[in-house]
Amino acid sequence: MKFKVKFYPENKEIEAEQGKSVLAAAISAGLHINSSCGGDGVCGRCKVIIRKGTVHTQPSGRISAEEKAKGYYLACLSTVESDLEVEVPPESKIDLDKISDEEAYLSRLKGIFTESVEIDKAETIIGEELFLHSPLASKIFLELPKPDLEDKISDLERVYREIRKKENLPIMQMGLSNVRRLGNLLRSSDWKITVTLGKRNDTVEVVLVEPGDTQDRSFGFAFDIGTTTISGELINLNTKKILSAKATFNKQASFGSDIITRIIFAHEQDGLERLHHAVIDGMNAMIREMVAENNIDLNDVTCCLCAGNTTMIHLLLKVDPSFIRREPYVPTANFVPVVRASEAGIKINPRGLLACVPGVSGYVGGDITAGVLASGISDAEELSILIDIGTNGEIVLGNKDWLIGCAASAGPAFEGSGVVCGMRATKGAIQRFEIDPKNLKVNYVTIGEVLPIGICGSGYIDIISELLKTHIIDKNGKINTSINDSRIRQGEFGKEFVLVDKKDTGHKQDIVITEMDLDNLKRAKAAIFSATSALVKHLNLSFEDVRKIYIAGGFGTYLDIEKAITIGLLPDLPRKKFVFIGNSSLAGAREILLSVDAFRRADQIAKKTTYFELSVEPGYMDEYVAALFFPHTDKERFPSVIK
Amino acid sequence: MKFKVKFYPENKEIEAEQGKSVLAAAISAGLHINSSCGGDGVCGRCKVIIRKGTVHTQPSGRISAEEKAKGYYLACLSTVESDLEVEVPPESKIDLDKISDEEAYLSRLKGIFTESVEIDKAETIIGEELFLHSPLASKIFLELPKPDLEDKISDLERVYREIRKKENLPIMQMGLSNVRRLGNLLRSSDWKITVTLGKRNDTVEVVLVEPGDTQDRSFGFAFDIGTTTISGELINLNTKKILSAKATFNKQASFGSDIITRIIFAHEQDGLERLHHAVIDGMNAMIREMVAENNIDLNDVTCCLCAGNTTMIHLLLKVDPSFIRREPYVPTANFVPVVRASEAGIKINPRGLLACVPGVSGYVGGDITAGVLASGISDAEELSILIDIGTNGEIVLGNKDWLIGCAASAGPAFEGSGVVCGMRATKGAIQRFEIDPKNLKVNYVTIGEVLPIGICGSGYIDIISELLKTHIIDKNGKINTSINDSRIRQGEFGKEFVLVDKKDTGHKQDIVITEMDLDNLKRAKAAIFSATSALVKHLNLSFEDVRKIYIAGGFGTYLDIEKAITIGLLPDLPRKKFVFIGNSSLAGAREILLSVDAFRRADQIAKKTTYFELSVEPGYMDEYVAALFFPHTDKERFPSVIK
Repeated sequence: MKFKVKFYPENKEIEAEQGKSVLAAAISAGLHINSSCGGDGVCGRCKVIIRKGTVHTQPSGRISAEEKAKGYYLACLSTVESDLEVEVPPESKIDLDKISDEEAYLSRLKGIFTESVEIDKAETIIGEELFLHSPLASKIFLELPKPDLEDKISDLERVYREIRKKENLPIMQMGLSNVRRLGNLLRSSDWKITVTLGKRNDTVEVVLVEPGDTQDRSFGFAFDIGTTTISGELINLNTKKILSAKATFNKQASFGSDIITRIIFAHEQDGLERLHHAVIDGMNAMIREMVAENNIDLNDVTCCLCAGNTTMIHLLLKVDPSFIRREPYVPTANFVPVVRASEAGIKINPRGLLACVPGVSGYVGGDITAGVLASGISDAEELSILIDIGTNGEIVLGNKDWLIGCAASAGPAFEGSGVVCGMRATKGAIQRFEIDPKNLKVNYVTIGEVLPIGICGSGYIDIISELLKTHIIDKNGKINTSINDSRIRQGEFGKEFVLVDKKDTGHKQDIVITEMDLDNLKRAKAAIFSATSALVKHLNLSFEDVRKIYIAGGFGTYLDIEKAITIGLLPDLPRKKFVFIGNSSLAGAREILLSVDAFRRADQIAKKTTYFELSVEPGYMDEYVAALFFPHTDKERFPSVIK
Repeated sequence: MKFKVKFYPENKEIEAEQGKSVLAAAISAGLHINSSCGGDGVCGRCKVIIRKGTVHTQPSGRISAEEKAKGYYLACLSTVESDLEVEVPPESKIDLDKISDEEAYLSRLKGIFTESVEIDKAETIIGEELFLHSPLASKIFLELPKPDLEDKISDLERVYREIRKKENLPIMQMGLSNVRRLGNLLRSSDWKITVTLGKRNDTVEVVLVEPGDTQDRSFGFAFDIGTTTISGELINLNTKKILSAKATFNKQASFGSDIITRIIFAHEQDGLERLHHAVIDGMNAMIREMVAENNIDLNDVTCCLCAGNTTMIHLLLKVDPSFIRREPYVPTANFVPVVRASEAGIKINPRGLLACVPGVSGYVGGDITAGVLASGISDAEELSILIDIGTNGEIVLGNKDWLIGCAASAGPAFEGSGVVCGMRATKGAIQRFEIDPKNLKVNYVTIGEVLPIGICGSGYIDIISELLKTHIIDKNGKINTSINDSRIRQGEFGKEFVLVDKKDTGHKQDIVITEMDLDNLKRAKAAIFSATSALVKHLNLSFEDVRKIYIAGGFGTYLDIEKAITIGLLPDLPRKKFVFIGNSSLAGAREILLSVDAFRRADQIAKKTTYFELSVEPGYMDEYVAALFFPHTDKERFPSVIK
């Protein structure tokens, strides 16, 4: 049976099944009501006033006698039993969890931050399907036999018995709040219910019990939480289809561009809270957008899987990351327990689950575990390398028997941050670039083939490569001012080269590259190259011993390997050794979201991987300094480029 | 390191270890601060003002900017880092969970309810130790190797690794709130911590992480939650010693004397909440008293195990019991998940656990499962019967291969309720009674050998038996007014016999037995006898086939089997077949609290036991009516009595 529920003052009306909680109805209506306990009736923040109609409610001490007299109820404990008129008082809408001055503070930085944008869904689909389909949370519809004098087992046992007919689950758990709802829910739904089974490490929890058949509506999110960029996908857990994919800048950047400055900021007054909110607010905004665009009810989003470096995961969960940067650099957790998403402030179904991909160490995180999983390097006989190019770059070398990884602080330049005209690999970003050596005329391709508005990582790689070839810049990255071209000029930020005149751009501003940009990009590529090189040397190997090099990162669908070698980002090896795999962290997160087997495999990968500490490696600093040239001080290491 | 923490306005000062939460310090000081989320920082009810000194706090959105400016903190998220002065504002002390008019309502009934009283600790110790010592929650002290560059696993894995060196636990869980505390706690305690491992069905949770070695301080409660009486024991989980044992009336009695009327009352406005609070308030009062008397810190009480009939367990957990009395009489849960005690309102350590003994059906509950466990009837080859005499009497027949149980609504008379001079089996209760047939002079023994103030169940059995033998009452329980004795008189409640003159009593009031009392006692004994008899007949057995009959109930240490047969409560069988085992439900609860093996055995017992529905049994009503005589209509069934 369905009823109409109208919410005031918004005047929003929706249909809700009998027995649905008023909180769930509000979520379905797209309204925000505070709730921090997962709908257990504990936090007392979801108070509403029932103006008209009947609810079935569980008693709660969080409603005072006066409030009760005024018609107040806890939305999470009250179920729809007739048409309703519900008033949501202002105090139930103010999100106290948000730091009040946060937005004001961030608005000062406006301009850096754009709204989240669509990313190409295809970019990250690689490899075959290796793992059994068994998502982190899955729904099962149950038509329970009604109890009679011959079959009198209790409601809870009846539900368990029916689940066990379909799945072999020795250990099951159910929270008290669901037990409290069970008796009425089973009877009002005529014993037809949908249970959501959540995998919490080695146990299974009956996370949700809903009236009727909601099996078809089962959704989850996969996230890659990068130091600079947060990428997310909304996934249909039944069909495994990616319904939306978006990326947004990580607003934590306003508190420091790399993980070290963020860890330091976390120790300041309110620092941890602000960093935590910067990331969850960004994620929640993306979730809201993608859910709305796909006409999905947020109640049907039951799980969220996150990959990120260790510091990002600590901040996501509001766990103090301080000890990551103090010797001996030990994080609080590499293997994080599966928690209720609402505990971490992630707004999906209030009882939905949040899991994080296990990490290796303080500086080699779950993003790289996810990348190893997605690239398949841990399944191969031959030696491969995975290079994840990001603000916190991570490199793993190994095969099915062993894995070793290290981190390189590259800075955010290749993610389009800290460079004057940088942007993410989204619509309007220059991603391919050429200069005609004869007349220095430029030619470029933007993502979405629209007028350009900025440059993404792969665009910068092309641009530097072309500027080198045409000698507009030298191997130090300095602009050759002896060339007589009006596009070489002194700009607001020093010497610059105008790549696209404002009349040809989407936002009517010149698109330029400055010497400062070139310096940042040079340092970024040097950090990645020297780390990869030091790792290979540390094992007394050479690049020739490596069969495949997987390049990952948020470069969109395009990365010109040839040009990445030209600028000295990647080693000078036969081109066929390189495979560009896009955002492998996000791809791995998606696989883990969709398969408990993949989750187990990720655990094994994280346990198996050895951490290699670059900073204490003799010769690493020399290697880095030598790489601060395009392509390198030692030209012999880039023979094909020199030729 | 220890610091002084002073609480205002109470002016209470205690010493607290560095790193202890302010909430835990308040609990140690014996102060009540609201908290309903188990110290997870979710409910926001434990706000305090730090007047002086330093705390380490986790950020929380439950503290507004203004409150923060005023020095407000959440007590659960803030740890002691110096000497402190802490103000507990009034709003953090008002227990909103209590229904405001509850106490006023109950005070009208004053007089029925006395304070909880000591019960004899020895009464329930029976049998040998069968089960391995492994309590529901156990503490382990860990001296963790400090991390260094050679041993860099994360804090959480380090704790797990150390636990696994001592115990074989494949599955371990830890909540996010403990993970959030872990980094600082490990370092401030110099890597010396005590973890409390809680057994939650087939998984183990790290429930608590405390600085230093608190292994010696590990306590739990066992409760028997009866319809009329709540009995509890404070147990040292290390030594298995019972430190205190108390009993109190179940204040739910003011909403109905039996389970059916309570289930009906639960459906009224606020009914479930009131019944729930009546039981938990009673339990919490007992907990407070026993903890105070033994100088135990409530933080060190980490678990609570409850046995009770199915309705009592539903009300304890605030689960709607309605469906127990609607055909086909199905409860919401017989096997209840282990929950956090604070979720059910039980005030021990806020993260401590609450478990309930599994029940068989709506009318044969966990109290009888516990009794079967304690009596050992499910371990024996021979057939035995367990008769648990209480308001909701329960009878089980069986052996190691099979068990069958039924319930008999006996009313509270044998628990000293609903009878004019009734009281529990505690100090001042008449428990033995004799009348000299020659001169009708009485002789009696009270518990504690003090002046009498009332009569307990075993006293009533003796009294009826003696009144019958001396023909002061007839087989209908009517007082023979033809006897010329001033003690036989018309009282406020009809005809009565004065057992003790007021000058000889402790409270200077006559102690009497009335015809109405005799009627209630007759119906109680008839319910028990006829149920036992019907159960035996139903299986085509006779009492002669039964090897042992275990008699359980809150009779203190004494029950005269001979006299119980004389009044027709027990069948007329060779006296050596009977064994009085006291409160077997409490004894079983204690065994289960102290052993996970015993818990598993209880699960098996509950699963193995068949429920026998008396009310649909042909001939049961006849059997009951025939038993409404002392000893019985059919004298041939009591040959030794007639003789």
